[in-house]
Amino acid sequence: MGELRARSVLVTGANRGIGLGFVQHLLALPNPPEVLFATCRDPKGQRAQELQKLASKHRNLVIVPLEVTDPASIKAAAASVGEHLKGSGLNLLINNAGIVKEITLDNETLKNMSDVYMTNTIAPLLLSQAFLPLLKKAAQESPGSGLSCSKAAIVNISSIAGSIKEMYLWEVMQIVSYRCSKAALNMLTRCQSMGYREHGILCIALHPGWVQTDMGNSVGDKAPVTVDASVGGMLKVLSSLSEKDTGTFLDWEGNIVPW
Amino acid sequence: MGELRARSVLVTGANRGIGLGFVQHLLALPNPPEVLFATCRDPKGQRAQELQKLASKHRNLVIVPLEVTDPASIKAAAASVGEHLKGSGLNLLINNAGIVKEITLDNETLKNMSDVYMTNTIAPLLLSQAFLPLLKKAAQESPGSGLSCSKAAIVNISSIAGSIKEMYLWEVMQIVSYRCSKAALNMLTRCQSMGYREHGILCIALHPGWVQTDMGNSVGDKAPVTVDASVGGMLKVLSSLSEKDTGTFLDWEGNIVPW
Repeated sequence: MGELRARSVLVTGANRGIGLGFVQHLLALPNPPEVLFATCRDPKGQRAQELQKLASKHRNLVIVPLEVTDPASIKAAAASVGEHLKGSGLNLLINNAGIVKEITLDNETLKNMSDVYMTNTIAPLLLSQAFLPLLKKAAQESPGSGLSCSKAAIVNISSIAGSIKEMYLWEVMQIVSYRCSKAALNMLTRCQSMGYREHGILCIALHPGWVQTDMGNSVGDKAPVTVDASVGGMLKVLSSLSEKDTGTFLDWEGNIVPW
Repeated sequence: MGELRARSVLVTGANRGIGLGFVQHLLALPNPPEVLFATCRDPKGQRAQELQKLASKHRNLVIVPLEVTDPASIKAAAASVGEHLKGSGLNLLINNAGIVKEITLDNETLKNMSDVYMTNTIAPLLLSQAFLPLLKKAAQESPGSGLSCSKAAIVNISSIAGSIKEMYLWEVMQIVSYRCSKAALNMLTRCQSMGYREHGILCIALHPGWVQTDMGNSVGDKAPVTVDASVGGMLKVLSSLSEKDTGTFLDWEGNIVPW
């Protein structure tokens, strides 16, 4: 198992929860990224204070405004990241931004279904399309023919709640819109792995665990995994991935999660 | 294996393709439904002529206008069906209406993703919610404690293209928006099976085969299965289902399709 040595990384939804955890852990690596892009909706807002504090201490951290449900915002973010990179590629795109609505099957609505699908499924598709030229460039710049997260990768933060086989904790939380969006995200990941393999880009879906974040605590009442354990585990998993892992669905401890 | 003896059945997208095939086969059963509701967007239009012809010959066939992407239209259809049934329940809801957009991963758009998800995933959710009172009533009216399609069932017409494991014919057709919507529909089917079991309603996802319809012929170039073979096979499968099958994903020959 190698060490994760991505020169440039982008994390969406980076101002809190798992996204912020990724930023903190990546900055603390023995070999941190040369540039770490952390996106959030409102970089100047109250909820981005932690991120601002980190940026004041770490010159390699660049905060990028991004509303993942807005194609124009995605386009602007990709252009801004491209400028910062001054001609080199983006090694690692972590599609982390996501939402959940705690609601029962009987009370699901068109709006809920649409909103959750937009953020959790369509946005990762659009972001991957927008950053594809930079990911391809990173793959071309990296030596060797295999796939890895140090070279070029799309990491989609999914959930075991999206496992059709498992139906994880159905009795505790039905969250049908969320489950459907994550099953679809797993399918998207498989599609991306098939489509982008020839470009040297690894694609993977990760289940972060049921984590003690605002989101994790908003459903059910006892998220068991700390952000540190989850993110530390996921980074270890990412560092170990190779060609054979593209298109798979793994949890934060490296176990395969069934579709 | 029993015979399918649903007293009342509703098929969406019934004016052509697999939907029309269901109507023709159901009318030809030794014991056809007492009432068969066939929905389509524009019952008076050019594309509903076959259905109109059938309705002029079969008094048990009722054509119901329904735009599955419009909640108001769904509500109106459910009210109209409820009136026709004069206090008795609906045994079988076949969510057949669906769309596909042939497009590559690189060219998928927000609009495509939304539109396909709306018709293929959200509509089956909303339709099942709207017809739930009538399905519950049918379950209560039927003797016995097990589940069956003659008693009360939701049948979601899915596709092997939504199997995350299979990635069926990726090299021939990428159709990412369709694949994601059908993976999500499979998840919805599992959720419905968990939520509606206590009401006596069986829920299943069916892969009809790659069928010689306008839709089947619009992707790739050689759909191998006839409408007759597909629909005949699916009706045979439906007639054989019991408690143990709820929440599964089967093809038109009764084989289990992996998630």
